[in-house]
Amino acid sequence: MTETPIGLRPKPRAAIERMAPYHPPTSGRVGAMRLDFNENTVGCSPKALERLKQALTGELLATYPEYEAVREKAAAFFGVGADQMTFCDGTDEGIHILIQTYVEAGDEVVMTWPAYPMLRFYAQVAGAEPVLVPYCEPDLAFPLDELLAAIGPKTRAVLVANPNNPTGGAIGLADIERILEKAAGAAVLIDEAYFEFYGVTALDLLPRYPNLFVSRTFSKTYGLAGLRVGCLFSQAENMALVRKGQSPYSVNVLAAACVTAAIEDQEYVRGYVREVLEAREELLAALRRLDIPYWPTEANFVLVHLGDKASRVVEGLAARGIRVRDRGKERVGAVRFTVGTREQTAQLIAAVEELL
Amino acid sequence: MTETPIGLRPKPRAAIERMAPYHPPTSGRVGAMRLDFNENTVGCSPKALERLKQALTGELLATYPEYEAVREKAAAFFGVGADQMTFCDGTDEGIHILIQTYVEAGDEVVMTWPAYPMLRFYAQVAGAEPVLVPYCEPDLAFPLDELLAAIGPKTRAVLVANPNNPTGGAIGLADIERILEKAAGAAVLIDEAYFEFYGVTALDLLPRYPNLFVSRTFSKTYGLAGLRVGCLFSQAENMALVRKGQSPYSVNVLAAACVTAAIEDQEYVRGYVREVLEAREELLAALRRLDIPYWPTEANFVLVHLGDKASRVVEGLAARGIRVRDRGKERVGAVRFTVGTREQTAQLIAAVEELL
Repeated sequence: MTETPIGLRPKPRAAIERMAPYHPPTSGRVGAMRLDFNENTVGCSPKALERLKQALTGELLATYPEYEAVREKAAAFFGVGADQMTFCDGTDEGIHILIQTYVEAGDEVVMTWPAYPMLRFYAQVAGAEPVLVPYCEPDLAFPLDELLAAIGPKTRAVLVANPNNPTGGAIGLADIERILEKAAGAAVLIDEAYFEFYGVTALDLLPRYPNLFVSRTFSKTYGLAGLRVGCLFSQAENMALVRKGQSPYSVNVLAAACVTAAIEDQEYVRGYVREVLEAREELLAALRRLDIPYWPTEANFVLVHLGDKASRVVEGLAARGIRVRDRGKERVGAVRFTVGTREQTAQLIAAVEELL
Repeated sequence: MTETPIGLRPKPRAAIERMAPYHPPTSGRVGAMRLDFNENTVGCSPKALERLKQALTGELLATYPEYEAVREKAAAFFGVGADQMTFCDGTDEGIHILIQTYVEAGDEVVMTWPAYPMLRFYAQVAGAEPVLVPYCEPDLAFPLDELLAAIGPKTRAVLVANPNNPTGGAIGLADIERILEKAAGAAVLIDEAYFEFYGVTALDLLPRYPNLFVSRTFSKTYGLAGLRVGCLFSQAENMALVRKGQSPYSVNVLAAACVTAAIEDQEYVRGYVREVLEAREELLAALRRLDIPYWPTEANFVLVHLGDKASRVVEGLAARGIRVRDRGKERVGAVRFTVGTREQTAQLIAAVEELL
């Protein structure tokens, strides 16, 4: 007679069993110079922080969140109807609920690669076949023809980050329209996490394409990564379906309390973007001077090729309190530098120079 | 030639198409006496609020959350290993990731009914067959024999809230063990959202049963419903699988910053529970005096039978700034009163008396 354990361990779905765990390195970042996750490196709009502090009461914390008024305001800012968007617990939840709405086990989900890991992650959770279309060599240009060719009758979703992470490149609306047309009947997600640094948005195409979904986040430019809030957009008929499978309270009440203040303070957003774009120019100039190859970027980060010096630089920077992201798994010798302020970038450049 | 729309609208999964939208009534609750969602009615521990305020900086908001240290502390409090739990974006996310780990489309998910709506919701999202076992009439006793009989070879999950909402009743560990044994090889979730008012926990069974999952929330007793944080527990081998499909950042940084302060302030928790249990006695005495039938409860709410007076009472209370929850959809004439403080309960009783 056995005493323990009693009963049988449940068997997971095959899809979960075969996927690899994804645990990004996220401990001990507080206090370091965070040039590893493409967050805003200085903090959100002081007005958003002030709004949050004013709203913060025990009563508010004790109450389930309400989104209606906030969604109305955000929708007006984005130029869509309130029924054409939903707030999400970060873009991650947006990807999750989009895929669970449209993708069955065995379906194909087409995406370029390398890309934001959560795109493949949720395709795997669904038990779908991720079809990974590699960026073009050697310049990591967008593989438009290959992507179009990969879209077939079993394709239920096409996921494109624009600009893409970690490569940094971006495409224009004409290319996006070709994807939307080829993928008619499949859900096409354009993830615009880095939109503010690039300025081209597929939101303008929303009225015309019933298969278009767009995601935005407040984690990057807006400096609210810790609060976990993003938006997913599509035509109202689609959003009604997507929201059917969404928890009614997935975004916390403090995010809801301050996100409109963050949106309203476009002066802060413009100022931060201007600073980052200037710093990016300075970083690119330094990379050229140091003979470090890099790939073109439209976002607040640069993917650089450090070859066999990659781990020495990453570790040396960490020892100096500067965290950057080793992307060697996606591409041997590649490291991603987030671009912060000019001051932070100057420190990064000096440290890299010292290490080489 | 058509100009708009271009392309075809994507077709949702059949599971999403056939489920009904769930939109709990959640607007305009701020400022009202919230006796409708079983939240803490006064606010969280002042120490948790203080901890949150101290942690609150633009730098923290801009940074992706880190959970390691917090999870260690919480696990020690709950008497489990850090690898036996995960924080969730409310219990909703816990249910979601549990079901997506174990349940395929077409599988059976067995639960008592009526229950917390999100239990059926995520079974439906998965495309599973929810097998609803009704509570016994007329006393809404737990249908143990019927539940055991409903567990069959296609059962992949069994979901039981203990105490249950909205009925209020609870079961003991012996009954839970019978369920765990009958459902060997299926995931059994015991949702303990109202644990603090009841005091019996299945966490003690965790080492013995490899098919046991337990969920807890900080939304009810702890007064942090707005922050969206709960926990899911199971043996480490199971949690590693469940976490494979969980976003690495689903819980926001402010919840992570103050949840251990909330846990550490057990004096606050005990005081709030004591107050609610006293208020509940007073409410039950008043219901008997007023000849209003009610069902036995082990939680911070009471399901009462108001029959054809239900909507008059619900609306009359709303007009007096007191929100309660009409459960007529689950049971004709039933209304659920959350139990708050003695003072709030006295106001509720006076208003109900006036309306009858």
